[in-house]
Amino acid sequence: MTSESSTELGQLRLGGQVLHIVRARNSDVTGIVALLADDVLGRSREADPDSQSYQDAFDAVDADSNQVLLVVLTPEDQLVATAQVTFIPGLSRGGALRAQAEAVRVAATHRGAGLGEALFVWIIEYCTARGANLLQLTTDRKRADAVRFYERLGFVVSHHGLKLALN
Amino acid sequence: MTSESSTELGQLRLGGQVLHIVRARNSDVTGIVALLADDVLGRSREADPDSQSYQDAFDAVDADSNQVLLVVLTPEDQLVATAQVTFIPGLSRGGALRAQAEAVRVAATHRGAGLGEALFVWIIEYCTARGANLLQLTTDRKRADAVRFYERLGFVVSHHGLKLALN
Repeated sequence: MTSESSTELGQLRLGGQVLHIVRARNSDVTGIVALLADDVLGRSREADPDSQSYQDAFDAVDADSNQVLLVVLTPEDQLVATAQVTFIPGLSRGGALRAQAEAVRVAATHRGAGLGEALFVWIIEYCTARGANLLQLTTDRKRADAVRFYERLGFVVSHHGLKLALN
Repeated sequence: MTSESSTELGQLRLGGQVLHIVRARNSDVTGIVALLADDVLGRSREADPDSQSYQDAFDAVDADSNQVLLVVLTPEDQLVATAQVTFIPGLSRGGALRAQAEAVRVAATHRGAGLGEALFVWIIEYCTARGANLLQLTTDRKRADAVRFYERLGFVVSHHGLKLALN
């Protein structure tokens, strides 16, 4: 199977429309980067979508079975959301398998319609089915409404999230 | 190379003693679990160190080149600290490679002597050398002194850390 084949992982039914959750392909990279950049924090952090660094990062993600980079597509193949799920085996908590969500974005055209919540409900089911014991994520303190969004889904704000830029 | 061969990744010099940073082997699992359990939060979260779930988790970690489970050994082979570093490729932040630290513990016999700080300084250098652009971690809000410890190392408390237990 090449990374260009379309692997449907699930579907979301939203407002009478069926959306397809698909493992990202090479050809989705530009669209994903556009979603990452169309964000109050992402705006200043992303580079030219055609930059080789994105292609290299995609290849590293695609080669690693513990990384699942998702895109959500309309029936017309419009990319309306993305998320990355990482599975992290480890000894702590009784040898728990952790799942971690990063880089979750919904297209501006599709915000406020429940897509983010529907996608997360699906991610929770997907991680459970893959045997994960815990789903974790961090959200920037500048995102005012994010914590309430995740608390509605059952997440608990039990931790501080710390970052160190490396040279 | 079997996982039982000793792979030294680095050394720490502390109080006139040379400590060895080694990739964890099968035979270290019981000692690592003992360190995880000898902790105010870990106490209630860990199981019997001989539980098969720890061995299965070790095998999954050991098979994944993006997981680096470390132990710190004295010249007498006493296990005095452990940490897991996970490398996470992704598209966001210009295709940044993230490093993530989990399950960092120092043995009660060696606390307060600068070992945790020396280990983290080494981890930062190691992650930088492996090409990571960012080192991230979360710390439980119940750990009163942890944030100050990480801030001294240069970390910024920019995020909330959220967890959801899965069934």
